[in-house]
Amino acid sequence: MVHPISRCALFALIAISAGLSSAPADEGMWLFNNPPLKQFKEKYQFEPTPQWLEHLQKSSVRFNSGGSGSFVSANGLVITNHHVGLDTLQKISSEKNNYVHDGFYARTQAEEPRATDLELNVLMSIEDVTARVNAALKPGLSADQSAAARRNAIAAIEKESKEKTGLRSDVVTLYQGGAYHLYRFKRYDDVRLVFAPEQQIAFYGGDPDNFEYPRFDLDICIFRAYENGQPAKVEHFLKWNAEGPKEGELTFVSGHPGKTDRQLTTDELAHMRDVEAPFLLNMFNRREVFFTAFAARSFENARRVREDLFGIQNNRKRYDGYLAALLDPEIDRSLKAGEQKLRDAMTKDAKWKGTLAAYDRIKKAQEETAKILPVYNYYETFRGVATATYRAPRGFYSTLFKYGRRILRTGDERPKPNGERFPEFRDSNRESLELDLFSTEPVHEDVEQITLTDSLTDLASRFGYGDPLVQKVLAGKSPAARAREVVTMTKLKDPAVRKQLYEGGVAAVTTARDPMIELARIVDAPARAARKVFEAQEETKQQAYGDIAKARFAIEGTSSYPDATFTLRLSYGVVRGYEEDGKQIPALTNFAGLYQRSAEHKNEPPFDLPQRWIDKKSALNPETKYDFVSDADIIGGNSGSPVVNKANEFVGIIFDGNIQSLVLDCIFSDKQARAVSVDSAAITEALRKVYDANALVDELGK
Amino acid sequence: MVHPISRCALFALIAISAGLSSAPADEGMWLFNNPPLKQFKEKYQFEPTPQWLEHLQKSSVRFNSGGSGSFVSANGLVITNHHVGLDTLQKISSEKNNYVHDGFYARTQAEEPRATDLELNVLMSIEDVTARVNAALKPGLSADQSAAARRNAIAAIEKESKEKTGLRSDVVTLYQGGAYHLYRFKRYDDVRLVFAPEQQIAFYGGDPDNFEYPRFDLDICIFRAYENGQPAKVEHFLKWNAEGPKEGELTFVSGHPGKTDRQLTTDELAHMRDVEAPFLLNMFNRREVFFTAFAARSFENARRVREDLFGIQNNRKRYDGYLAALLDPEIDRSLKAGEQKLRDAMTKDAKWKGTLAAYDRIKKAQEETAKILPVYNYYETFRGVATATYRAPRGFYSTLFKYGRRILRTGDERPKPNGERFPEFRDSNRESLELDLFSTEPVHEDVEQITLTDSLTDLASRFGYGDPLVQKVLAGKSPAARAREVVTMTKLKDPAVRKQLYEGGVAAVTTARDPMIELARIVDAPARAARKVFEAQEETKQQAYGDIAKARFAIEGTSSYPDATFTLRLSYGVVRGYEEDGKQIPALTNFAGLYQRSAEHKNEPPFDLPQRWIDKKSALNPETKYDFVSDADIIGGNSGSPVVNKANEFVGIIFDGNIQSLVLDCIFSDKQARAVSVDSAAITEALRKVYDANALVDELGK
Repeated sequence: MVHPISRCALFALIAISAGLSSAPADEGMWLFNNPPLKQFKEKYQFEPTPQWLEHLQKSSVRFNSGGSGSFVSANGLVITNHHVGLDTLQKISSEKNNYVHDGFYARTQAEEPRATDLELNVLMSIEDVTARVNAALKPGLSADQSAAARRNAIAAIEKESKEKTGLRSDVVTLYQGGAYHLYRFKRYDDVRLVFAPEQQIAFYGGDPDNFEYPRFDLDICIFRAYENGQPAKVEHFLKWNAEGPKEGELTFVSGHPGKTDRQLTTDELAHMRDVEAPFLLNMFNRREVFFTAFAARSFENARRVREDLFGIQNNRKRYDGYLAALLDPEIDRSLKAGEQKLRDAMTKDAKWKGTLAAYDRIKKAQEETAKILPVYNYYETFRGVATATYRAPRGFYSTLFKYGRRILRTGDERPKPNGERFPEFRDSNRESLELDLFSTEPVHEDVEQITLTDSLTDLASRFGYGDPLVQKVLAGKSPAARAREVVTMTKLKDPAVRKQLYEGGVAAVTTARDPMIELARIVDAPARAARKVFEAQEETKQQAYGDIAKARFAIEGTSSYPDATFTLRLSYGVVRGYEEDGKQIPALTNFAGLYQRSAEHKNEPPFDLPQRWIDKKSALNPETKYDFVSDADIIGGNSGSPVVNKANEFVGIIFDGNIQSLVLDCIFSDKQARAVSVDSAAITEALRKVYDANALVDELGK
Repeated sequence: MVHPISRCALFALIAISAGLSSAPADEGMWLFNNPPLKQFKEKYQFEPTPQWLEHLQKSSVRFNSGGSGSFVSANGLVITNHHVGLDTLQKISSEKNNYVHDGFYARTQAEEPRATDLELNVLMSIEDVTARVNAALKPGLSADQSAAARRNAIAAIEKESKEKTGLRSDVVTLYQGGAYHLYRFKRYDDVRLVFAPEQQIAFYGGDPDNFEYPRFDLDICIFRAYENGQPAKVEHFLKWNAEGPKEGELTFVSGHPGKTDRQLTTDELAHMRDVEAPFLLNMFNRREVFFTAFAARSFENARRVREDLFGIQNNRKRYDGYLAALLDPEIDRSLKAGEQKLRDAMTKDAKWKGTLAAYDRIKKAQEETAKILPVYNYYETFRGVATATYRAPRGFYSTLFKYGRRILRTGDERPKPNGERFPEFRDSNRESLELDLFSTEPVHEDVEQITLTDSLTDLASRFGYGDPLVQKVLAGKSPAARAREVVTMTKLKDPAVRKQLYEGGVAAVTTARDPMIELARIVDAPARAARKVFEAQEETKQQAYGDIAKARFAIEGTSSYPDATFTLRLSYGVVRGYEEDGKQIPALTNFAGLYQRSAEHKNEPPFDLPQRWIDKKSALNPETKYDFVSDADIIGGNSGSPVVNKANEFVGIIFDGNIQSLVLDCIFSDKQARAVSVDSAAITEALRKVYDANALVDELGK
């Protein structure tokens, strides 16, 4: 069943559309323990077996750096997007070995370089623990007490599961607090690079073509998971289909959409529109500008910030699109009408009438949060960008600061009972935290200095240079001088020093007087205070959303899907084009189109081809299908998700949505919104003909 | 005499410097009717005659698009920077004739294309009218009444002068209101292009090299002023010196520095630091990002926004540097100490003790202004970027909106008595306004749509989508849809329509119901209301600054220079390098350095050479001096200023300051701050050898 807010919006979008089939839309990011079997059957006469679902679930891989992937061989080959692997490619590259620019292919396993801090997770089981978590919330508790009780209950469940199964165990919050599920993951932290094309072809068309269609990107990257120093033997992996899907074919997407806001109240969406999105865009804009300027100064500068700049541009374009959707009165009306419909139903039902107050509680909590939001954002962290990775507080944009704060807080948090710690310091997250903290990722002092200088400047602009805390942070220096001082003098650039301080605890940290840790210390109390308020208000909201969710389940039935939360979801859609400005955009592109686009732009960046692609042009079949679109319901975080056919075969890999899909953050539409994938046929042809990687192709799906 | 705030800062800078000569610094942007004769004589034993000064003054040209230049031939040749001429180059270019990219040389006068709306001014006389203006300010008037009285007095002086002399007559405010001078200008509005190099060489190194040194830019552009359809016969023009200056030589700069803040109170500088500079940078960042993204999509897109993008990047870098200076505690201390010294002197003197209250009045006015500043900035205009050109309100970044508002307001303002109109509608400005309004500058609908969409989005983010005025502006549409509607439907793209509506007055405008004029109408009342408050507070400040100026003159003597106001100033300095990070940066570069820099960057943009420069390399003398630095006191607006030697010969042309010079906005320093010029030797050599423009060289200085 389609969720009411979305259904309403869909109606509005249909109303302005030229015409649509009467079948229900291919909407939804479904839980694997609650798949849309009814829709599959009614619309597509497709009835997957439990084994079909289990196989797809366990073939799916979560990249903790923020993305999705899938196993595609019995020996642990994992395929994802180039832009998901980019974080690792950047970290293992140097001025001499530039894997990002030049691409890479390991012809033997011995040649596969190990990622510095990449963690992969495979979801092994799901258990509904809603009752157990809610049982901890006795009536009459304050928001603070509730938060503590919930945190304790969750920590206990996670710890118990971890000890019992040895698997990474996370209790995930679904339906904004309407349900809690225990997810158990098999964890891989020895991951090695097998193949990456040149970024030039993976991200062909660069920022101008990002979120656009037609596209011509080979956005893939292949890793191999290892266990005990040997390629991981995996039971579940996807069969390789070298033909790709046909136009009109039904396909499935299994991946980790990061964050949607479809169930947020309209008050919260207004806050996103008027405060959070502008806040993020303002930040992305300034960072894009200074990184671009830095990159333009030399080739090596450009290399060093390539991945950061890429991520910023991507997010900027994404939030531009999301903000445009939120500023669209049609969408605004649809969202409001959807909410009103549910509220009307509540009003009419004595059992749920009281739940209406939940909307006011959310609004009130939002107003309370707004008071500390600037301090929270600049000194603790900010939300809104959907990945699982650490987000430096806006005022301290620095990897070294991240290390400094983690070491400082480890000393304070580790001695506390597990359930009372910040989640990132809980036992269940210890391995992941250490993988990140001891990473051998190179730290470039020049880059650290520009990011920290800019963010300290930003901090001073936000609170005023004379603000007492700003003055403490700057310690009598200009932002540039202060950044230079702490970056050059900190010893945290050395992973061994980080390890020693981390393990040495409070005593070692106090003795070390490392300037970056001391900087983290200066802001620690106010940052923690803001976080405390923020989390108490989030707790209030979560309870209120939980109440609304209960009413919604009762009124509309439980067969809906929760907002995306970077947990595994199943989407589905048909390969089909769309109409734009009166023109029909075809569903598929081919290699001929790639060469044509390059010619139109005189092969100038970002439309230039790697030399290899120029040399191998005649070897390639120009009719080979390249990228395709489908109407599957996806969002950021789905990047790298496998696209499979009814036979559960790999036929493509999601790498983008078109510009019209950016509305999907808050509302579903299939009028023009499309998911963009690389066709498996293109991957097969390119690996064989351009990269001479026949051995790799032969291993795929086997 | 050096101004005390600056002297204090200079002291601080000296304190941290390796060592400086004990001679007073080459500080100051001096009025031509109050030149630093004492400094010339004492430090350089140079005593210019009144004729020497008059000749330089009348050879100097103000570009009303925001820059400086000079006459360099009896037949009206005017040399300026390429980046000053760029506005015109962009407006007269098309996809087919791309003067910006390809450069241009008119081998005959018949081939010289006319600028669409370029106005040049030559300062013919200066008259001190302080007493007459102040006489209008009777004691006991409210700020509002004072403002009106002053406006009336100024309008009357201007009108009387214009009628008497036929010259453009502007009363300019100096010393923040300490003095009023009547400037009479000869006006040229038929200006034609003679020569421009490729932007690639004029702006060699692009944004990365902007505000940097060493440099390799041929940043020049040559126009010819016409009168009655014939080349203007000018009495005063600079002799051409083909050798350029020598290292250590004293040089003079005559030009139009746009705006400095050296006499602002520290409260006002704190506001600049914490509010205005961040406001502007936030705006530049978002505009740089969307223009860059738009430009990357096609060659024609890039061509259309080239000049806008250039200006934005330039301002962004400039304000980045200025903000960094304001956030430097050394500078902060110097500025405060300078102010304190003057305040201490006032405190000790019964005559001036009362003047101390002026500081509080300024602070209070600033606080009042702050309340309406957002509305003023987004709906009326904003200050801070120093040019004489129109600044669209931040929420309506559109040339068509500018036209719409001007036409709308002409109807309302023209019937008022001259002295009660907004200054831009006064009789003294009528010709300039019409030159701009009837310009044949091409208006690109796609560019207008992206700028207006972004600024309407910005507006909604600033005030909230639900704000009643925002809702009226958007008229039930999204920012994109609203921008598309007004841009496609307005008839103001046609200069003939603009002329007809302008001349038709209120009746014609009402009947036309042009959507862009109607958009301007929606916001006119709140914009005017904010402007009224803003100007009343500015008036209060001006009176207070006037009081402080009187005290300063009494305490320190009158031989100081006022803050820059885009009026003609005389600066001076010695050609000399500086030390940076322990390295000595030489004063001069040469052509060999240009070719070397290109090779280091594999001739990739923005370090690529025009084909002509590659082809003519062997013809050029590699030892030819190219760019040079001096310690003259300059700022934005000085671009294109002639650099002359003691013999009043043209030896170079200012085009930039180095990054260390960005501090000059608020304080003088000659430790590292340098003005950057193109050497006349480079111009001569390039024109002859690369551009085969011997006839043009032969005309220079004759």
